[in-house]
Amino acid sequence: MNEQSRNPVVIVGGGFGGLAAARALHHLKGEVILIDRMNHHVFQPLLYQVATAALSPADIAWPLRTLLRAQRNVRIMMDEVRAIDRSARRIELRNSEPVSYSSLILSPGARHSYFGHNTWEQDAPGLKTLPDALEIRERMLMAFEKAERLKGTPEARDELTFVIVGGGPTGVELAGALAEIGRKAMTPDFPVLHQAASRILLIEGGPRILEAFPPALSSRAQASLESLGVTVLLNCRVHDVTSKGVMAGSEFINSAHVIWAAGNVASPILASLGVPLDSSGRVIVGPDLSLKEDPWVFVIGDAAHCLSAQQKPLPGLAAVAMQEGRYVAGIIAGCVPEGQRSAFRYRDRGILATIGRAKAVAQFGPISLSGVVAWLAWCFVHIFFLIGFRNRARVMFEWIWYYVTFKPGARLIYWKDRRINPQ
Amino acid sequence: MNEQSRNPVVIVGGGFGGLAAARALHHLKGEVILIDRMNHHVFQPLLYQVATAALSPADIAWPLRTLLRAQRNVRIMMDEVRAIDRSARRIELRNSEPVSYSSLILSPGARHSYFGHNTWEQDAPGLKTLPDALEIRERMLMAFEKAERLKGTPEARDELTFVIVGGGPTGVELAGALAEIGRKAMTPDFPVLHQAASRILLIEGGPRILEAFPPALSSRAQASLESLGVTVLLNCRVHDVTSKGVMAGSEFINSAHVIWAAGNVASPILASLGVPLDSSGRVIVGPDLSLKEDPWVFVIGDAAHCLSAQQKPLPGLAAVAMQEGRYVAGIIAGCVPEGQRSAFRYRDRGILATIGRAKAVAQFGPISLSGVVAWLAWCFVHIFFLIGFRNRARVMFEWIWYYVTFKPGARLIYWKDRRINPQ
Repeated sequence: MNEQSRNPVVIVGGGFGGLAAARALHHLKGEVILIDRMNHHVFQPLLYQVATAALSPADIAWPLRTLLRAQRNVRIMMDEVRAIDRSARRIELRNSEPVSYSSLILSPGARHSYFGHNTWEQDAPGLKTLPDALEIRERMLMAFEKAERLKGTPEARDELTFVIVGGGPTGVELAGALAEIGRKAMTPDFPVLHQAASRILLIEGGPRILEAFPPALSSRAQASLESLGVTVLLNCRVHDVTSKGVMAGSEFINSAHVIWAAGNVASPILASLGVPLDSSGRVIVGPDLSLKEDPWVFVIGDAAHCLSAQQKPLPGLAAVAMQEGRYVAGIIAGCVPEGQRSAFRYRDRGILATIGRAKAVAQFGPISLSGVVAWLAWCFVHIFFLIGFRNRARVMFEWIWYYVTFKPGARLIYWKDRRINPQ
Repeated sequence: MNEQSRNPVVIVGGGFGGLAAARALHHLKGEVILIDRMNHHVFQPLLYQVATAALSPADIAWPLRTLLRAQRNVRIMMDEVRAIDRSARRIELRNSEPVSYSSLILSPGARHSYFGHNTWEQDAPGLKTLPDALEIRERMLMAFEKAERLKGTPEARDELTFVIVGGGPTGVELAGALAEIGRKAMTPDFPVLHQAASRILLIEGGPRILEAFPPALSSRAQASLESLGVTVLLNCRVHDVTSKGVMAGSEFINSAHVIWAAGNVASPILASLGVPLDSSGRVIVGPDLSLKEDPWVFVIGDAAHCLSAQQKPLPGLAAVAMQEGRYVAGIIAGCVPEGQRSAFRYRDRGILATIGRAKAVAQFGPISLSGVVAWLAWCFVHIFFLIGFRNRARVMFEWIWYYVTFKPGARLIYWKDRRINPQ
């Protein structure tokens, strides 16, 4: 490490994993460079609340520079990684000179996978970033405006038909939030639209939604969604997506609003590593999260294919990424050589998913929770893990406000390219 | 009015004037239609705080439908007015069928005037809408990112040179806020940039800034700006704007960021009325704010050229527009015929402008205030006039947070068309 240690530790991606790693390196003598395309860290588990107008972008995002301002050894670069040159040990960037590294932590995250049909993305946007969330929010709000104009026509019905593909936590939370906002917040603002004008369908390819949870909780979540008016289609595969709707199983569902929450594919920059990737584009890492080919290049978070103690790949959760980030930072800070590293072990603290107001499911080890108790646990955990007093106070205030008034605060249409022509 | 009264009262524009008129018509038996291009009302006096990342869009904007939800006689149309056909008494819209009216209230507002040089707009955006504010916010935040990358070059200096054209309240408030944010919030996040790297120039064509205020307050405001590091250029005319900077007087100032806050021109739809307009495109209305040619078509707010008791045109203030809206609503609700209308009188309750933290100027009748007292008055008045408990609580919280921490909350770069390439 002596010769290398003149070069900085480079972290690619300021999500949960990258940020946790940067923070865990606060005692490191050398420089740490954190590179991200965006200037902010996003609390992804609440992104669906921005997409459904319950929260504002600034409620769940923080400038990376401010988060790491006090940490003198960290330098932030807002830039896009174009390639990783392992032989030269450096990163090529879009706008800056290449950056050399002594060790490298890759946490570039994942995008939605369209199963080889990338053209579907245009008609079925996913939800991974703030621009994604604002895109969905604007489409949802414009749908009601257009439906009112087109009242009584088949187009109006299609405008208010929302199809969500993928029954994981993102899909379930989006479906629940859309159903609630449609019925409780939007309908009173559009008196000419019929109460049941808005239809929400959740399409899942497998036999149950929330497959990471025990089957009993999946059924409870499904019942909660159905009580909100969501139609859940199980064992249903999407064969095509167009601007008119989706081909789901053998039926074509007319819908102007298809949202994609199915499957992930890891960041394309991993391909430049020249190492084996799994079918989701993730790097197959060793038990210490490093490349088999390079013990000082680590991959964490959604970009890593890492096996659990039960030999199953670890799930794409914030908790996994954060623990991985801290673990890798420990190896780097301690200069632990390859042969002396203990394997990474994920400590599962539980999983939660919310369906709507006072409706959620939670699994903490052997304990299954649902209903109000799970929902309160969900609220508590999400407030707790938000960064900083300001955002906790704002989000809590917004939730209480919404709970009491059913008037989500961020129902604004201002996306630039639609300003002139709201059609 | 009998034959006409089957048709609705139509209000064009949901700004201060239009919204006040709609609310004042709550007892009207007939229908009221409010048409706006956007789905929300914006509290324009705080727009500069969105542009400087202190507040989020949802802190100062509200969906029009929700604001007027309880008022059963109001219908909202989100659409763009293409023309007003006075002979047929109807409004032509971009996306909907034409709407007929019995009486018409026009409050379409104004855009910035580039004194015949409309091509300057691209390099010198103005600040009238939420998209404008987000555009300026993003440019400001990207400037620091680029300057860090270009450190030490002349381009870096130009990136951090902000030129604001126009020394009215908008220009003064923007200049003060930019100076404060640059020094207190951004510099700690960019340690490689020199403390004084950011330059802010405020260019005013007349002999003093804030010309609506007494001269003593103008000087105090200028001294406050200068204490924040703003360079104020008086009696200085802008002859050209390019992507490289501005030609101000006989000097070319290199700047990548020119913001336009000088002069207004009323909405172009007023031209379709076929009535005389003043040099700013405003309709010259009678003492009852109606057209001389048509007693049931009223023009209010920034779109109206209306003389005060002192025979001077009324200023473009929220208070003027709101009083005009209520006055016109009274005439329509009371079906007051042309000859029996008392002239509109503006009741001046005072003017305020803030320069920065604990710095402001205020004029209430004969009383001039400056410094902390004026600033507290400014805070109180702006919180008071915000609509609703939620926004008051949020804005107050953000201000206190910013006052204590100097970390404005909304420093996020996510504008869509720059997502891929942050260059």
